[in-house]
Amino acid sequence: MRIVIVGAGAAGLTLASNIRYNDEETEIIIFTKGEDIAYSPCAIPLVLGGCIESFDDIIMHDADYYLDKNIQVHLDTAVTHVDSDNKTITFEKDTACETMGYDKLVLAVGSEIIDPGFDIDDADSIFSLTNIHDGKIIQKSLEGKKDVVFISNFSIGIESAYELAKKGYNVTFLEQSFGILPLFLDGEMSGKLIELNDGVDFETNADVTAITTDGSKKVIHYNDKSITADVVILPSNKVPSTSLAVEAGCEIGEFGAVKINEYLETSVEDIYAIGDCVEVESHVTGTPTMSPAGTTAVRQAMVLANNFTGNKLTFDPVVNTVVSKVGEYNYACSGITESFANMIGMPVVSEYMETCQKARYYPQNNKLYIKMICKLDGTVVGCQMLSEGDISSKIDALSFIITDNLKCDEIIQKEFSYTPSLAMVVSPLVQISLKIMKKIE
Amino acid sequence: MRIVIVGAGAAGLTLASNIRYNDEETEIIIFTKGEDIAYSPCAIPLVLGGCIESFDDIIMHDADYYLDKNIQVHLDTAVTHVDSDNKTITFEKDTACETMGYDKLVLAVGSEIIDPGFDIDDADSIFSLTNIHDGKIIQKSLEGKKDVVFISNFSIGIESAYELAKKGYNVTFLEQSFGILPLFLDGEMSGKLIELNDGVDFETNADVTAITTDGSKKVIHYNDKSITADVVILPSNKVPSTSLAVEAGCEIGEFGAVKINEYLETSVEDIYAIGDCVEVESHVTGTPTMSPAGTTAVRQAMVLANNFTGNKLTFDPVVNTVVSKVGEYNYACSGITESFANMIGMPVVSEYMETCQKARYYPQNNKLYIKMICKLDGTVVGCQMLSEGDISSKIDALSFIITDNLKCDEIIQKEFSYTPSLAMVVSPLVQISLKIMKKIE
Repeated sequence: MRIVIVGAGAAGLTLASNIRYNDEETEIIIFTKGEDIAYSPCAIPLVLGGCIESFDDIIMHDADYYLDKNIQVHLDTAVTHVDSDNKTITFEKDTACETMGYDKLVLAVGSEIIDPGFDIDDADSIFSLTNIHDGKIIQKSLEGKKDVVFISNFSIGIESAYELAKKGYNVTFLEQSFGILPLFLDGEMSGKLIELNDGVDFETNADVTAITTDGSKKVIHYNDKSITADVVILPSNKVPSTSLAVEAGCEIGEFGAVKINEYLETSVEDIYAIGDCVEVESHVTGTPTMSPAGTTAVRQAMVLANNFTGNKLTFDPVVNTVVSKVGEYNYACSGITESFANMIGMPVVSEYMETCQKARYYPQNNKLYIKMICKLDGTVVGCQMLSEGDISSKIDALSFIITDNLKCDEIIQKEFSYTPSLAMVVSPLVQISLKIMKKIE
Repeated sequence: MRIVIVGAGAAGLTLASNIRYNDEETEIIIFTKGEDIAYSPCAIPLVLGGCIESFDDIIMHDADYYLDKNIQVHLDTAVTHVDSDNKTITFEKDTACETMGYDKLVLAVGSEIIDPGFDIDDADSIFSLTNIHDGKIIQKSLEGKKDVVFISNFSIGIESAYELAKKGYNVTFLEQSFGILPLFLDGEMSGKLIELNDGVDFETNADVTAITTDGSKKVIHYNDKSITADVVILPSNKVPSTSLAVEAGCEIGEFGAVKINEYLETSVEDIYAIGDCVEVESHVTGTPTMSPAGTTAVRQAMVLANNFTGNKLTFDPVVNTVVSKVGEYNYACSGITESFANMIGMPVVSEYMETCQKARYYPQNNKLYIKMICKLDGTVVGCQMLSEGDISSKIDALSFIITDNLKCDEIIQKEFSYTPSLAMVVSPLVQISLKIMKKIE
């Protein structure tokens, strides 16, 4: 059997590796337009900030590594056509064009950046920031510069803004929304995240209308004001890449992404899709949503690899569990925000509290800022946390709580571990559950 | 309504506070034989080691704090009799004796240390280590001394051993079992924990037969050898305190602890029991077990408080989720060990792996040593971890996995958060699940 995978991001490569882990026979062929593979996009801010020395350090493997596992990776090669009737693809390298048959085709093609929607008179010193190629160019362009402006960016931009500020750059962040990371954090939590961190000047509700050039400086015009910069990072608004899926006849969903079922199958036989190009189901609302995260891509890849090799697994609805480091603080979230609940008319109750990560008397402690959102019957539908300490596994526990539809009074019956140097005797998740239980009564 | 609580450990005090949190009216009266309340026994090793300055720092509240909440705490007061027919108790302070009626009686009386089972010619410089009182005496006796021997101790002893070693004492630990912490860690994991840490000399399978005195030194005789010490810490073997329960007519279970149902009720009407004095149900085996942990006590107290104040909750079977810091390493566990599974004849499969806490390329990383134990159908029944990094919330996620009866192929469908500075893109729990899935196939 030949499985052809289009795209060598987290989705495509994890799929290939996991098929091979379970099965030594299947022919696996990957095509990618890029030249760098198997790197962590989430680590780009850390290289820009100098915490990780070079972009080479975040590249885990090259094509030869995969070849050793009998996985062919074609770099710099664009798949230009899919013929789902004859089960072939056409790919182009340099100017040469070739056609190849497939038994199973997996679209792991990701997303593409869209036009920022304002005028730019000269693209010099203005960059997108979505992949390692962008990272390298930006790193070079920052040499000897001082003033950097980010416009309405997601995690990668916000993390990079703080990393560059730590390195001594003057960094301004113009955010179009009411707060940063509006998909992940409610206003008071994103406000708290900005308040806790130093180093980046934020302006929210900033409507950028144009970027002009004044000598060696860029001038960013927004609202009725302007600000100058040496380097400008554009919004990272993306849309799912769907041209191949459309050509193949795959159904497209309401978010403009490829529709898949719980087995990651598109509407066309023997064509599958995973990663940023697909639409998924929200666990909380039961409706379609997007989940453009490496973790989702990896999870889909592992499920699909198992399905290809004999274990029938399903990809379950998502709660979008996220953790990220912004400046000195980590934020984490899972489920929906209160703002989103309000937007869709879901009645919810929420609580916010400031507590500790470790026993109150423990000397090296971290504060924990936590907000939890529940339905009126106490079922947890969302949670947001901020801390200087590690909250990644804490939000994992929360993601289990949300996917299990647990109510607050069930959380207080759950077992949490305790030792003074790592945890409180009453877990913060229990503390906030008790508050919500009292509010609901 | 008057609720009388016997015992002011984590169980009793948490119960009192949580009743009061939900209800301002109920009369709450606590009796305790001790004079210090509301301290964390788990923090005693940290004070002995100097990480926390004084024993006063780990005392969170005094009796006045509770009085302000309209909770009476009678210190230095022993409850000597229970008359369950007339619903009264008798208590003794100094030499005075009094009787008091109750509507609900809660036995939160804990456990008591048992005779170590070997001869001691002179008790001077030989101590038990179970409470703050012991801690203070040991701290004083250690002044100007050098050689300390611990005999077969649990977490508090092992943690203290390493804390004292860090402080410069010569510490030897004589363990009667095949390895330390045999209830929590399989031999290879406890061996690894000892191997990773420096500072304490361990001897396992050490059968202590006597402690004699030679001048100012104690001589500990074990196997066919002996070792001298300035200070000796005795085994902390305990049994549940049940004399009041027995007098009241409460049924005692196979572990010699008070039998309770899922509502924390004993077999006698209006008498409840929580904490170290009760027997609980093991989630994995469905049979009675012990769970003498502060977290279990607190959880039982919260459930009971809610039951007293109108929310009918149940106390679910336990998986005994534990985290603790030993030397520079944390260990954590949940569920049963492979040794225990073997002992009870449960067929299991296990995997061990060494992986990372953070992205492999992240500079300040911690190794994670993990062992997972599953039934032959992949259902997780136990997990053990070691790391220098924070693993408390990771074992919490595992405790959810075990109580939810999840199989390995369900774990890989769970959402875990990721950012390079805190987590791996494929969670260690997923990595080891994939290994077990392959083994089971």
